Amino acid sequence: MHELEVKIPSVEARSYRISIGNEILGSLWDRIEADYSRLSKFVVTDENLVSAGHLEAFLGRGSVLTFVISPAGETSKNIDTVTSIIEAMEKAYLGRDTLVVALGGGTVGDIAGFAASVFKRGVPIVHVPTTTVAQADSSIGGKTGVDSSISKNAFGAFWHPAAVYIDVAVLTTLDDRQFRAGLVESVKHALIADNEYFDFLQSNIEAVLERKADVLEKMADYNCKIKAGVVEADPTEKNQRRMLNYGHTVGHAVEAASGFELLHGESVAIGIIAAGLIESEMGLSEPGRLDRIRKIFEKIGVPITLPANLAEDNLVDLIKRDKKAVNKWPRFVLISRIGKVYCRDGQWAVEVEQDVVENVLGKF
Amino acid sequence: MHELEVKIPSVEARSYRISIGNEILGSLWDRIEADYSRLSKFVVTDENLVSAGHLEAFLGRGSVLTFVISPAGETSKNIDTVTSIIEAMEKAYLGRDTLVVALGGGTVGDIAGFAASVFKRGVPIVHVPTTTVAQADSSIGGKTGVDSSISKNAFGAFWHPAAVYIDVAVLTTLDDRQFRAGLVESVKHALIADNEYFDFLQSNIEAVLERKADVLEKMADYNCKIKAGVVEADPTEKNQRRMLNYGHTVGHAVEAASGFELLHGESVAIGIIAAGLIESEMGLSEPGRLDRIRKIFEKIGVPITLPANLAEDNLVDLIKRDKKAVNKWPRFVLISRIGKVYCRDGQWAVEVEQDVVENVLGKF
Repeated sequence: MHELEVKIPSVEARSYRISIGNEILGSLWDRIEADYSRLSKFVVTDENLVSAGHLEAFLGRGSVLTFVISPAGETSKNIDTVTSIIEAMEKAYLGRDTLVVALGGGTVGDIAGFAASVFKRGVPIVHVPTTTVAQADSSIGGKTGVDSSISKNAFGAFWHPAAVYIDVAVLTTLDDRQFRAGLVESVKHALIADNEYFDFLQSNIEAVLERKADVLEKMADYNCKIKAGVVEADPTEKNQRRMLNYGHTVGHAVEAASGFELLHGESVAIGIIAAGLIESEMGLSEPGRLDRIRKIFEKIGVPITLPANLAEDNLVDLIKRDKKAVNKWPRFVLISRIGKVYCRDGQWAVEVEQDVVENVLGKF
Repeated sequence: MHELEVKIPSVEARSYRISIGNEILGSLWDRIEADYSRLSKFVVTDENLVSAGHLEAFLGRGSVLTFVISPAGETSKNIDTVTSIIEAMEKAYLGRDTLVVALGGGTVGDIAGFAASVFKRGVPIVHVPTTTVAQADSSIGGKTGVDSSISKNAFGAFWHPAAVYIDVAVLTTLDDRQFRAGLVESVKHALIADNEYFDFLQSNIEAVLERKADVLEKMADYNCKIKAGVVEADPTEKNQRRMLNYGHTVGHAVEAASGFELLHGESVAIGIIAAGLIESEMGLSEPGRLDRIRKIFEKIGVPITLPANLAEDNLVDLIKRDKKAVNKWPRFVLISRIGKVYCRDGQWAVEVEQDVVENVLGKF
């Protein structure tokens, strides 16, 4: 037996830009056309964006190849939708010189991002996120994915965007429940990374809920800085980036167990409270901390207790299917204080006994 | 409007090992277990490998999670098979700490490689290629993909393996037509990169067809060195790597137009002859070159003319759908002499008028 080595060269660092503004949607298409003039464009959006008038506001009167995901939402986040997108791109004879443009919420970004990552082995994408959750979180960082019949994001890729454009004005037409649920990711950012940001949210939560542009822009700024900082340190989630999963291990299980009746943000709110209870069990709590978190969630209007109809053993089974599970039980992200993730032996996600989690799920 | 930058750090160079030997299949599993002891293993293979006894020879008596693709071959190279693999991995509660092991030909490697690249945003894979085409070509270089209903490899990713193990002894049980068709990629390597290798193949073609181990090992060596050299220079096919597509632009179209009645290698043989005819039209031919190529293909026993039942306009339509197409007509790789790709203005794939291609397809 003899051996050969194949060298895979290094990949250079690069960067992409997040542009944040108020009422910029109508001017973005010209900018995208100018910045990517060499590439064919293919827009992916969903029927909610069409009915809200955002697609028309974005594209103007020009004719652009567009795929409209229908129905909007989590039920379309599967491989069949990706296949339909890929085949629509093929029918339009698009090649590798194509730019995918995702206009929509987290689901649109996840689906379009994954489609871009696999179309002919990968084409670039720009994101124009239109929901609180997408603007705060999912459009930044390059995570893409769709669900299998068994679990969330079973299919996925890390596929960093070429650019992100955030118009906070589109949030003013967002459905109230969606808007509120999306704020949970902002609270999560504050909890894991920035104590001052938590204070800002606490003081300005009424203005946020009234969707005041200046407060929303400020919030977008905080969110993007926090998210970008974590992603830069660990772009493919080997360790540190896992902190962004705060509240998500239980959250994902709750979301699935509810049959996606609960929105992602609502489920993560429950997951964050569960994390708080686990912190108490593990001696990581501080007086009053969990109450402050419960209070802000109450103001936002998201659930802070486990719905009675969710079976605990089903939740435990779903937690075992978490994609970060190692030896069939995932690690958990916990905080030691507001703005500070609990890090043990250099690990940002730590072992928690299954008993402790079952105990917490049983009592709330 | 204001802006933030997100930095994506550089990715370090790495390398992987290709191990080549004769009758090593039975000892590989222990080595894989030792080298990747920390990871769960998931084997992907197909029913041909099972019936040939190779799976059993590979795994011994141990019980290992295995997915057997059925039916074997191109018809299973689609997203439904990938979905079945992903869901089988989920049902086994596998996490990101999983090593996918692909035992099989090019189709198995492409499917398993793509599944590994998307499973929970990517897990490592090792390839144990078992056909002439997989050993010479597809197991090295990180290209993965599955077909859509419209074209080949419409879904795909660049996903470099962790290691490749080549046992030339498994070729001795390979179906004769498969064996012969796979040799076309070896001829292609010689044509684009190594004039001496072409002479070697010409002189030793009888021994190759008798599947003599020493000649097959020598061939594996030439193939891996050539392929590795090209991949190292351009791992994600921005330019130079395109030379590996010699004969493939017409070849892929022929393969699809035949409804996959023709094997990949058989189609590429036709594509290489088509490239030779295009070279003649463009003044790149040398006296006797195309005859030498025709002669070696005749000895191998692969077609050198277009089957009469393939409609020319259908071929042109399929060529337009080539994944490397820019502005809906792909560039072509051509050679200026044996062992030397024709490179114009730094481009390894050059523009050829659609008329020229139609003309060539019309006359052969």
